[in-house]
Amino acid sequence: MKKIQVLTDFLEANDAIALENKRVFDRHKILVLNLMSSPGAGKTLILEKTIEKVKKDFKFAVIEGDVATSNDAKRLAKYDIPVVQITTESFGGACHLDANMVRKAMERIDLSKVEILFIENIGNLICPAEFELGEDGKIIVMSLTEGEDKPTKYPVAFRNAELLLINKVDLLNHLDLNLKLLLQNAKKVNPKLKVLQVSAKTGVGIDTWIEWLKKEFQLKRKKQNR
Amino acid sequence: MKKIQVLTDFLEANDAIALENKRVFDRHKILVLNLMSSPGAGKTLILEKTIEKVKKDFKFAVIEGDVATSNDAKRLAKYDIPVVQITTESFGGACHLDANMVRKAMERIDLSKVEILFIENIGNLICPAEFELGEDGKIIVMSLTEGEDKPTKYPVAFRNAELLLINKVDLLNHLDLNLKLLLQNAKKVNPKLKVLQVSAKTGVGIDTWIEWLKKEFQLKRKKQNR
Repeated sequence: MKKIQVLTDFLEANDAIALENKRVFDRHKILVLNLMSSPGAGKTLILEKTIEKVKKDFKFAVIEGDVATSNDAKRLAKYDIPVVQITTESFGGACHLDANMVRKAMERIDLSKVEILFIENIGNLICPAEFELGEDGKIIVMSLTEGEDKPTKYPVAFRNAELLLINKVDLLNHLDLNLKLLLQNAKKVNPKLKVLQVSAKTGVGIDTWIEWLKKEFQLKRKKQNR
Repeated sequence: MKKIQVLTDFLEANDAIALENKRVFDRHKILVLNLMSSPGAGKTLILEKTIEKVKKDFKFAVIEGDVATSNDAKRLAKYDIPVVQITTESFGGACHLDANMVRKAMERIDLSKVEILFIENIGNLICPAEFELGEDGKIIVMSLTEGEDKPTKYPVAFRNAELLLINKVDLLNHLDLNLKLLLQNAKKVNPKLKVLQVSAKTGVGIDTWIEWLKKEFQLKRKKQNR
C-alpha cells in the first residue's frame, strides 16, 4: 500500500504544477498541445511540415522531450522559432516529461510572443500518459506500421487524448493491416477520440490536420476572451 | 538525493531477484532471451515465425509482458507451448517487466521441459532497459520505419543488448531512410552489438536469426555442462 501512496502523492504534486503551468498558458492565450507516440512514429516530421505550412499564420514554439540527443530540437530550430530541448538523461533517464520540467522550459521562452506551443513528449506510449503538463489537449501520433491493437494495448494514452493522428498512411498498401479494426479499437477505448489519417512524408491529410489545429486555436481564444 | 537513493535500492532489490532467476534458469540449462522494442516493432510476429520454423528442434516457452490485453499470449499459445501472460495494468500500469514478475511467471511453467525461454517485454525502449530479469541476453527488435536515430535516442537499451533485429526490411524501398546511418548509430552506441536484418512478414533473414539462436543455445549448453 505504501508504494501506491507515494505514487499518488507524486502524481498529485505533478498535477498541481501542471495547473500552474496551465494558468500561465491561459493568461497568454497560448494553445498548448502535448504530442505523445511510440519512438519513430513521426511527431517531429509532422511538426516540421506543419510549421513550414503555417508559420506565417501562427507564432509557434516547441518544447522537445528526449532521453538523449537534441536532434529533434535542431530540426525544428531551422524555422527560427523558440525551441527548448529537455533531455531526461540527466534526470535518471526519465521516460516522460513532467510538469516541473515543462515549467523550467517555459522560463526560457518569451510566452508573450507565442500562440501555439507544441510539447513533443518522449517516445513512449505508457509513462507520458500519466503526467499532466498543463496542456489544453493530448495528441497521439501513431505510425500505421504499429498495428491494429495499439489502442487496446496502451489504453491510458488513447483514453486521455483528444486526437489520434495516424501517420505514414502512404505505407498502407505495403502492410498486412486491417485499418478498419484499428479505427474500431481506437473508438472502443475512447469513443470521443477524433481520428485523422496523415502522411508527413507525402503531405496527405496535413491540410485537414491544420484545419483541426486552427479550430482548436480559435476555440482557445474564444474561451480566454470571455 | 533521497529520490535517487530509493531508485538505487529498488534496482538493487530487482537485480538480486534477477540473479536468483538466472540461477534457476541455469540449473535447467535454459537459454533465456529478453526481447525489447517500441510498440508495434514486430516482436510477436518474429516469435511466431521462429517457433513455427523450429518447434521440432527446441522446447520453447514464452513469458509475455503487456500493460493490457493478452492478445500476444493468445497468438503464441496456438503453437501448444507454455505461455504466461503478465499484464501490468494491475501493477499501476508499470512500463516494464521486473524480476519479481518473471519469478511469479516462472512458477507457472514446468522448467524441466523448456530449452529456450523468450521474455517478450512491454513495448517501450526506455524503462525495460533498466531492469534485469535473469536473462542470458537482451535483444532489441526495431522496425525499420522508426528511423536512423533510435540507437542514439535510446542509448541504454541499445548499449545493453547483444543483438539488434531490424525488422520490416521489406519496407526499405518505401521509406526515406538512410540504413547505413542507422547501422553506424547502432555501432557508435554499442560497438559489440550484432545486427541482423529481417522481415517477419516475408521471411527474409529469419534463417540467419535462427542460426544465431542455435549458436547461443549451444553456447549456453556448453557453459552449463562444464
